[in-house]
Amino acid sequence: MVRCTIGLDFGTNSARALLVNVANGQEIATSVCNYAHGQEGIILDNQDPHLARQQPQDYLDAAAICAQQVMAKADSEVSPGDIIGIGVDTTGSTPLPLDQQGVPLAFSDEFKDHPAAMAWLWKDHTSHAEAEEITQLASTLRAKYLAKCGGKYSSEWFWSKVLHCLRTVPEVYDAAYTWVEIADWIPAVLAGITPPDAIKRSICAAGHKAMFNPAWNGYPDEEFLGQLDQKLIALRHTLSNKSYNIAEAAGNLTEQWAQELNLPAGIPVAVGAFDAHLGAVGSGIKPGVLVKIIGTSTCDMLVAPLDQNLPDIPGLCGVVPESILPGFFGLEAGQSAVGDIFNWFVNQVQPGGASNGSHQALTAGAERLTPGQSGLLGLDWHNGNRTVLVDQRLTGMLVGMTLATTPAEIYRALIESTAFGARVIVERFEEYGLKVDRVINCGGISAKNALLMQVYADVLGRPLEISRSNQTCALGAAIAAAVVAGNQAGGYADFDQAIEAMTAVQDQKFTPNSDHKKVYDRLYGLYKRLHDAFGVKGADGDLADVMKELLIIREQVNG
Amino acid sequence: MVRCTIGLDFGTNSARALLVNVANGQEIATSVCNYAHGQEGIILDNQDPHLARQQPQDYLDAAAICAQQVMAKADSEVSPGDIIGIGVDTTGSTPLPLDQQGVPLAFSDEFKDHPAAMAWLWKDHTSHAEAEEITQLASTLRAKYLAKCGGKYSSEWFWSKVLHCLRTVPEVYDAAYTWVEIADWIPAVLAGITPPDAIKRSICAAGHKAMFNPAWNGYPDEEFLGQLDQKLIALRHTLSNKSYNIAEAAGNLTEQWAQELNLPAGIPVAVGAFDAHLGAVGSGIKPGVLVKIIGTSTCDMLVAPLDQNLPDIPGLCGVVPESILPGFFGLEAGQSAVGDIFNWFVNQVQPGGASNGSHQALTAGAERLTPGQSGLLGLDWHNGNRTVLVDQRLTGMLVGMTLATTPAEIYRALIESTAFGARVIVERFEEYGLKVDRVINCGGISAKNALLMQVYADVLGRPLEISRSNQTCALGAAIAAAVVAGNQAGGYADFDQAIEAMTAVQDQKFTPNSDHKKVYDRLYGLYKRLHDAFGVKGADGDLADVMKELLIIREQVNG
Repeated sequence: MVRCTIGLDFGTNSARALLVNVANGQEIATSVCNYAHGQEGIILDNQDPHLARQQPQDYLDAAAICAQQVMAKADSEVSPGDIIGIGVDTTGSTPLPLDQQGVPLAFSDEFKDHPAAMAWLWKDHTSHAEAEEITQLASTLRAKYLAKCGGKYSSEWFWSKVLHCLRTVPEVYDAAYTWVEIADWIPAVLAGITPPDAIKRSICAAGHKAMFNPAWNGYPDEEFLGQLDQKLIALRHTLSNKSYNIAEAAGNLTEQWAQELNLPAGIPVAVGAFDAHLGAVGSGIKPGVLVKIIGTSTCDMLVAPLDQNLPDIPGLCGVVPESILPGFFGLEAGQSAVGDIFNWFVNQVQPGGASNGSHQALTAGAERLTPGQSGLLGLDWHNGNRTVLVDQRLTGMLVGMTLATTPAEIYRALIESTAFGARVIVERFEEYGLKVDRVINCGGISAKNALLMQVYADVLGRPLEISRSNQTCALGAAIAAAVVAGNQAGGYADFDQAIEAMTAVQDQKFTPNSDHKKVYDRLYGLYKRLHDAFGVKGADGDLADVMKELLIIREQVNG
Repeated sequence: MVRCTIGLDFGTNSARALLVNVANGQEIATSVCNYAHGQEGIILDNQDPHLARQQPQDYLDAAAICAQQVMAKADSEVSPGDIIGIGVDTTGSTPLPLDQQGVPLAFSDEFKDHPAAMAWLWKDHTSHAEAEEITQLASTLRAKYLAKCGGKYSSEWFWSKVLHCLRTVPEVYDAAYTWVEIADWIPAVLAGITPPDAIKRSICAAGHKAMFNPAWNGYPDEEFLGQLDQKLIALRHTLSNKSYNIAEAAGNLTEQWAQELNLPAGIPVAVGAFDAHLGAVGSGIKPGVLVKIIGTSTCDMLVAPLDQNLPDIPGLCGVVPESILPGFFGLEAGQSAVGDIFNWFVNQVQPGGASNGSHQALTAGAERLTPGQSGLLGLDWHNGNRTVLVDQRLTGMLVGMTLATTPAEIYRALIESTAFGARVIVERFEEYGLKVDRVINCGGISAKNALLMQVYADVLGRPLEISRSNQTCALGAAIAAAVVAGNQAGGYADFDQAIEAMTAVQDQKFTPNSDHKKVYDRLYGLYKRLHDAFGVKGADGDLADVMKELLIIREQVNG
């Protein structure tokens, strides 16, 4: 008899259900459902390009449709009774205001079309000023808060968004009893946990985005929040000093939701977590394994035992106990743009005239080049730098252009610049005592872009593995479901066993070419100098030899 | 009765004759003739992209055709008897080996198809190593030689080319009695000056390209040349210690050439000069007037009285007495690429997909932007930097790209980068006590590109005038012809009078917009910091605020 779990993955534009065989991680069926409201699921504002909200009802509707569909698809192999648990991953920080009964304000008559009453999507950037303010206050009053989130609090995160609502739409703020991440709200809804105080808040969301840390008794203290605004103190009272990792159940599936989803009532629903963190689980994360999720941007995830004496690592967005795996610190780094940079070049610059500017054509041209041959070197900061500079106000840069520089050369230089950015992150981890023995990659680009993967292997100087699953986030949620179900129900006693059984890498590895690595080592040295000159205050920036070095390297590789 | 002169302009791909009314500079007729040999007149080598030579017979054939045509065109207005002189301008340094009788080796049976026996076109870069060697030796042995040519001897110049021939094709070097610039050879041929020792060498070519200076008795001394190669000493013996400015006649038109050209025998042929220098004359150069010739690259020309105590100006390609006008120092600066950079973007990068990447479309898009709005800033070094860094081994750079950066924004940033480069040159002149009261522009771009001219006016913060003539080089040659003809023949006694009568500027001026200038002053400050960080050894290069400043400026101009 097959035992299965379902991972529900709530992405930026759509939700997905993945039905997984617990015994071996086999992905039996999957289904995707777009959100109904807004543009591609996102509610925008013509007047304010920073605004990005979501209708919370869309999550629930999409969950029901996906789950029904995935069960229908697997009908011959799997019956509802075979499902032993549900896991949930979402975007984040995507907080949502709730009333005292735990109902989203967006469901009320008063606020039903009000954007501030919706879920504030991770990529909503309306709270820039509040992020600055929080960073400023923390730097003088609570430096320890910043030390765990890379030195800067982001406009994408919980407190910035809540404070911006308080400042700009006080009627919504005042009407809300509390705010909750959708990663916490969706599992609570499925489990029928109605009173807001009973909702289990995940350490992943709270720790990475809301400055929650057991070391200072949970969320930021009242003195700190009160200095931002006295009204935040009441909100702080609604937030528990305890949070939960994904080995915990948020609760059990209600009768009503069992019907909606065509699943058995009473099965456990795991505490939610962010997509990247469960993506790391679905890729097989463990100590020494760096998981890179490479798409429009990247997330780079690592875990370290809780008893390891972990120093603060400058520039790391987040170091949070148990945010990825129980028993381990979760470390999250990332690059603000990777695939987005190549998409910018293809879709916005539109090089190559009528016919030679597609990703395919540029990749073909770039593959014919060898490292160093173009004489180009770039900084991959077109969308800022998340790690290790933690600075959204940085921009892209390209040096080395001549009158003969081609679009394919630029395309390859853009790929290489993101590879150098990836290396900065790996080196920062290692510099602070975290071993990186293996690198497992997942995400759209890792599966599809062999040129990029080879460049990354050459630049990083290590073999790169690729996750077997194309749906690592949903798979990670399904793994959490298998753990909360427990081994007596046919699941697993812990993540170690579940990950061992349910994840795998592809046979194909990308191994570094040692000649290429030598050239890239030299280029990386130059990249680091540009990186520091443009990104680090007070760095030595005598760059007078950079262009010449690039020409020398070019001449040497051209023989 | 109309009095006319003819300017013969020998360009890179073609020759032109311009028939000018001496009284008022009216351009009565013009004719262009392409060179017959090679690709677009240039003999290339598949094996060596640096090689660029020309068949000297092409100059003579083209001169005859052009002169005949221009006289035919003007038949109703002008008869041959109305022509009182001929002037010649050419590219340079474009030296040519001659035998003892003054005949080009290229005309001999032995060497007739040999590229080394041809004219070595200015843009021939085969002599890179020899240029380094000459610079090295001069820096230890004769620093004064370098001081007058900006600190570096170029691969494009006379001694580099001659030494490269000596080293790589000794049979041609050994067969040559002497080497002569085509600026000197063509007038000599027209005037029937056969013995090489009798050819008048122009101060313009000798001074700017062959380290000739009256201050050290002409060309470099034997000790210096002998240390490069003993064989150069014999060549040095064939070079006179005296050179000539354009107020001198090279000789008088021979009977034979009078027939070939359909002109009267015996009229004076002015000493030749380079196209840029006579272009400055044709644009109306005088003290305080900067003439900018803006095309694929630029030449920036200024004159200063010989009795002015002129300091050495670091980074200036050339300061040569009487190289532009008799009685004045000629100062030559320039940018290695201007139009070539825009052409690179349009023709090589080919942005904007199938339909939005033309110069016209990009200009239209760039015109809709205001200064600072793109957040972009570039270095215009795609073909190196001629002034003030004198460094061919510099390359282009662009900073400030975001995921929203458009081709029109890049196009405008490229234009602006060349404007900032132009400002560096003007400031260098002024820093060393040379006044710039007016700026007169000529060359293809100045006549056609109103956006660029307005950007330049805003960046330079001064009104920009445009020469009335589209053929300022040939006009300058015609002015020289009017001066060597003299006032008794209906010409002029000196250049002051001739320039006053024969040149003019257009009514339309480009005047700076003071709001734009303020923004460009800030961007120029950032440009200078990038310029120094990447271009000047040991410069302070903490650039950590550059990207942020660009964003701040962008936000401010966007309101």
